[in-house]
Order: sequence, then C-alpha cells, then structure tokens
Amino acid sequence: MPVITLISDFGWSDHYAGAMKGVILSVCAEARIVDISHGITPYEIAEAAFALAQSWRYFPAKTVHIIVVDPGVGSERRAIAASAGGHYFVAPDNGVLSMVFTEPGARVRAIESVKLFRHPVSQTFHGRDIFASVAAHLAAGVSFAKLGPVIDDYARLSITHPVRTARRGWTGAVLKIDRFGNLITNFPMADFAQIEKQPFDMSIGLRVIDKLAKNYAEMRFGEPFVIAGSSGFLEVSVNQGSAAKVLGVGVGAPIELRLL
Amino acid sequence: MPVITLISDFGWSDHYAGAMKGVILSVCAEARIVDISHGITPYEIAEAAFALAQSWRYFPAKTVHIIVVDPGVGSERRAIAASAGGHYFVAPDNGVLSMVFTEPGARVRAIESVKLFRHPVSQTFHGRDIFASVAAHLAAGVSFAKLGPVIDDYARLSITHPVRTARRGWTGAVLKIDRFGNLITNFPMADFAQIEKQPFDMSIGLRVIDKLAKNYAEMRFGEPFVIAGSSGFLEVSVNQGSAAKVLGVGVGAPIELRLL
Amino acid sequence: MPVITLISDFGWSDHYAGAMKGVILSVCAEARIVDISHGITPYEIAEAAFALAQSWRYFPAKTVHIIVVDPGVGSERRAIAASAGGHYFVAPDNGVLSMVFTEPGARVRAIESVKLFRHPVSQTFHGRDIFASVAAHLAAGVSFAKLGPVIDDYARLSITHPVRTARRGWTGAVLKIDRFGNLITNFPMADFAQIEKQPFDMSIGLRVIDKLAKNYAEMRFGEPFVIAGSSGFLEVSVNQGSAAKVLGVGVGAPIELRLL
Repeated sequence: MPVITLISDFGWSDHYAGAMKGVILSVCAEARIVDISHGITPYEIAEAAFALAQSWRYFPAKTVHIIVVDPGVGSERRAIAASAGGHYFVAPDNGVLSMVFTEPGARVRAIESVKLFRHPVSQTFHGRDIFASVAAHLAAGVSFAKLGPVIDDYARLSITHPVRTARRGWTGAVLKIDRFGNLITNFPMADFAQIEKQPFDMSIGLRVIDKLAKNYAEMRFGEPFVIAGSSGFLEVSVNQGSAAKVLGVGVGAPIELRLL
Repeated sequence: MPVITLISDFGWSDHYAGAMKGVILSVCAEARIVDISHGITPYEIAEAAFALAQSWRYFPAKTVHIIVVDPGVGSERRAIAASAGGHYFVAPDNGVLSMVFTEPGARVRAIESVKLFRHPVSQTFHGRDIFASVAAHLAAGVSFAKLGPVIDDYARLSITHPVRTARRGWTGAVLKIDRFGNLITNFPMADFAQIEKQPFDMSIGLRVIDKLAKNYAEMRFGEPFVIAGSSGFLEVSVNQGSAAKVLGVGVGAPIELRLL
Repeated sequence: MPVITLISDFGWSDHYAGAMKGVILSVCAEARIVDISHGITPYEIAEAAFALAQSWRYFPAKTVHIIVVDPGVGSERRAIAASAGGHYFVAPDNGVLSMVFTEPGARVRAIESVKLFRHPVSQTFHGRDIFASVAAHLAAGVSFAKLGPVIDDYARLSITHPVRTARRGWTGAVLKIDRFGNLITNFPMADFAQIEKQPFDMSIGLRVIDKLAKNYAEMRFGEPFVIAGSSGFLEVSVNQGSAAKVLGVGVGAPIELRLL
C-alpha cells in the first residue's frame, strides 16, 4: 500500500490539511496518509526542510512526501518533484527540499503535467490542487518521468555548516529548537566525534558548556550539557528542562566550539 | 476501503478523539480514519460547519463525515445523519450540517436506531458512544434508511449572505480567520466576479482596500488586498503577514463592498 | 489489519512522531497507525497513563499501544511490554502503564530482544529506535514471549484513591483537566452511585457544590455542578464554561465529598 506523508505550515485547526487528504484519497484510494507535521511556523522553509530531513529516511521505499510551506503560491515559482534515496518528494521550488537534493543520485523535475492537477487550480492553495493531486498520482503508479522535464536550476537554501575559526575552534549555529527546548546544532556528530574523548568547551548564549552527557537522566536538573542527539547533530539539553530558556537563545544563535 | 473523517472541538491533547477512533475500528476494522480538525474552538458550531463545507467535497463518494461540536450533548437535542452529494454525515442536530443541507437532494434522518450505539451511552460523550459507532456501522454497510425516520425540522444556522445596500453596494462579513490571518469573507466569488474587471473599494476595519491580487507574492509586504481565495469566497490577505492583525478585525466583522 | 496507537509528549510540530511512524511502516507495512495524543505535557507520566486508560479499551483486540513519555530515556530504566485485556502495550518502565497492570491476567516483560530494535539505537530517542520498532514487530506477528523475560518489579505510579475521612466523608483529588476545563476527579462512579439519590456536598477550591446534573445543557451558565462523566469518574463541569477557571483549581487539587 502506497504511503504519502504530509509536512505543512497549515496548523491543525483549519481545513487545509483535510482538503488535501480528500484529494489524495480521491485519486489514490489505497494511499496510507501519514501526518508528519502541520505545525511548521508559517512560511519557515528551513524548519520544514529540517523536519523532512529528520523523518523521510525512516519510511518505506517509494513513500511520497508532500511538503507545503509555500509563501510564493500562485506566483512564477515552479512546482517540483524529486526522486532520491528510493523516495519521492513533491513541493514548491523554494528550497524546502534542499536536504534531499544532496542525496546521491537525486533527480529533480519541474512539474508541468497539468493533467495531473485538480482543476480549476486555485492561486492560493496549490497544496490541494497541485501537490496533493500529483503526489497521489505518483503513489498510484504514474511514472516520475511523466511529471515534467529534469531541471538543475532549482532553488537551494544556503545550509550553514560549522566554520573553522582557529586550529581547534569552530563557529556554528542553532538549527532547531524542539518542544522540549533542546537545541539542535549544525555540528554533525560524525565530524565531531572527538568530543567524546577530548575536553572541549562550547560557548552559547552567555554560558560555556564543557560536559558531554551519555543520556539526559544522568545530569543534574538545570545544568545544560552537550549530547549526541537522535538528529545526527550535537544537541544542547537540560535534564527535564528547556535548554533554550536556560541559555536564552533561539534558532540561528551562534555557537563557538573549542577542542582543548 | 471506507473512509471516515473527523471534525471536533476536542483539541489534540485529550483522549477523546482517540477513544472515538477505537470505537470506529472496533465496529469497522477496514475504516480509514482521517482527521480533518480537532482544533475547532470549543462550542463554535459555525466554525465546524465551515471546516466541513471546505473539505467534504474533496473526499471520495461514500465517505462518512463525523462532526462533534456538541454543547447540547445529553439533552433532548437529536442525533442526525444526512446523505448529500454521495457522502454521509453524522452529527448533533444543532446546525453544524447547515452547509450540507443545501445540497441538491440532501436527505436528513433522526438517528433512532439505538442498537447501533455503543452501550452504555454516556451523557457527556455522544461522540464516542453514538456518532463514532453509528458512522462506523454506516461505513461497514448498514443502510442509511435504517438509522431512523426522515425529518425536515432539523436545526439550521442562519448563514449570512451579503446584503445589497445601494445600487452598487453590499454589506457582508468575515466568515473565518485562518492560521495565517487570512480573512475569508462571505462574498461568494461566483457572485462577485465583476471585481476582476471593475474598480471597487472594500471597507473593513478602518481601512479601504481597492487592490485585487492574482497571488500573494506579487503584493508588497504589509499591504492588505482582496484575492479570489481557495475557499470559493473573496478573501482579504497580506503577503506573509496577518490581515486580521493589520486590519484589527475578527470573525463577524462587517465589510462594505462598493463597485465603482 | 493490525492497529498501532501512539501516545507521547512529542507535541505536533516536531518530526519525532513522524519518524516513529516511518519506522513502524518500514517494519509492518500493513499497520494502521492511530494518533491518540502527542499533546501530553512534557514528562507528565500520570497524564499519559490517564490518556491510555481512557482510550485503549475501545480499540480492537490485539491493538498495540505505544506510550512514549520518557524522561529517563537512555538511562538504566528498562523498556517493557505488557499484555492485558487482549491488547499489547510498549513503553518505558516508569509507571506510565500503571492503569494497565491492574487488569486481570496482565503480564509484563522486560524488552531485551535487541534484534527487534532499530540500530544504531539513539540514547535520546528510544521512541523511534526501540518502542516503535518493537511495537511494529509485535503487530507483524512476533510473539509477545519473544520480547524478553516476565518481570514483576516494574515501576508503578501511586494512584490516589479517595480516602474516607468520616463516616460519610471522603477526600479525593482532581485527576485531570480537559480542554473544556472539565475536572475529572478520582471518585469512581461505580463507588459513589449513591449521590444520584442522596443529597451531598462537594468542596473544591473555595466553593461547595451540591448539584448533580444529568447533562451539561440543563444547567445555568457559570454554575459548577457534578456529573457522571464519560471517564467513569465523577466530573465537575460548567455548562459551556471552564470549571477549572470558575473554581480556580488545577490537577491534584483536593476535593472533599460529604453525603448528607
């Protein structure tokens, strides 16, 4: 049974996600619809890109992922589809698929096959009339190649990687703050595994953190620490507290890491 | 596979929607349950009626829609079911189906077949014990005629249509404000298509708007405009901003439209 | 088709629930995933235990329920599974299954079969790598006995029952406040059925309530009353208002009940 996932900034109260689900089931009755999040902050493309990057890989091959965070809806911005890692992705051409484009063998097409749209197409709700409809056709077996021509000039977010600032120092940033107040940084664990063996200090907000925890529960309440998070990045947390509040930082806040 | 949708004011934190889903699957194991919204403002019947009107049509024929916004639960108010447009609807008799009753050929029945209920029936949660259970039986193949007698004295919301106030003037109102702060008015696009060709002014809050946009992105930040929304009504929006905040208006706020 | 339900404190915006759903469908493609709530207050084990107690029984036999409210993730706390009432439950060993353990014939196992986990196992997200994966294997037919050894030293919440304070008096507490502001008490209806026939007074906050309602709608706006709620406990409500606000009380607030 084909799986279709949804990520949007529509929230959970309005009818928008519901209308998309109706369109999907009308095109592909067997589709299994999975909500990943409709709680993306309105217009926050990077936040949606991150939610997608953190979830798509866990789904079965051939899953079709729809991402609708679309401030440019109705304008000249294209609708695109990507094939990567054995999955499909349908979204506006605004960079929201940036973390998918980097997959080996990723292929991107402009969606031009208007006969796969729901008509008439509203100029304010392509989620319903284009993305849901096209995704459901893909799930129902329409071939990816039929959607439109391969393109390589799609929009990309500039994803910031940590920058080396000294022989043993780097500057990075907070990528995401979750519901618990955990700070997910842009330091990939794979590149900074040495902090498990080596003293370090990490400056963030007005604090310097030098503790690496193996799990939350071993740490004292109220004290921030670094931990190898489930995201694949270094994270900063407080046991049963909000690191964001304790440190007073938000998304984009700078981080200095120094190996000692 | 039968589809059952849910609209309620139960919110997303309590167990109420979960209990309903359990009842549905216990009666009709193959049901495909789709959440439209559990975020309706408590007791706001008109808000739920609008969410339903904006979503049911996109689902496949024979979908059963459950709507539970039910301040009169346990009282004498009846439980009703409607058949309209090839779909089924199950709800309290409080007007929440008002926008369905107007479908050509709509038929309404009082639900009296108590053997389709879950017993014992709680006097505070008919969503679980009556609406979910009856909807699941419908989805499983029980015939609509078995639910109870046809009635025509069901409750109806007074839906306000724009009123002509001068040869070229109308008074209408804000029907709904969505997560983005878009104002959905009660001016049907079909009846006011002339504003695409003709100068107009629309007074709302303390502002007069005279711009019609084809899409959000073509407009300057901060400036409100009228747009043909996905709802089928004229909408008032601000590009990447909240029209509700810019104009300082809420649901029910009056609107004056004048064709020039 | 196997049913898997989800209760967590992950909220509805982050990717965590989505990642769990992906893992489930990758292990058991036919699983029917049902969200009960992701809105549990972070770390509130008792709140999750209550949401589970109020919903699991309505699902079909063999449903697998996953509960992830897990402040001790990554520490020495065990992962456990329970079989009770014909259903399965997968959760951290922190008391969140307390209201299931009391079912006749309930059986609890420590989950030790690491080959049912997703690897590598993150030390901050067992919901994805252990609970979702193990639950999906159970749903796919792996036998409960294979998960690990039967244990009886699992963690239990101390669930407070009303205490008799006088010949005709009891002290209890507020168990839960729902979205509407209804107060669900810990007085089981089955044990206090006499209040339907006998005068009583219930002290809560600064008020004394002596009215029992049959339904919400028969009561005047603004006046709190006792009602036999859908939860199986006595509840305190206000017609179309919030009893929590009118009475100024929260979860855990003491209640005195006196039969007159």
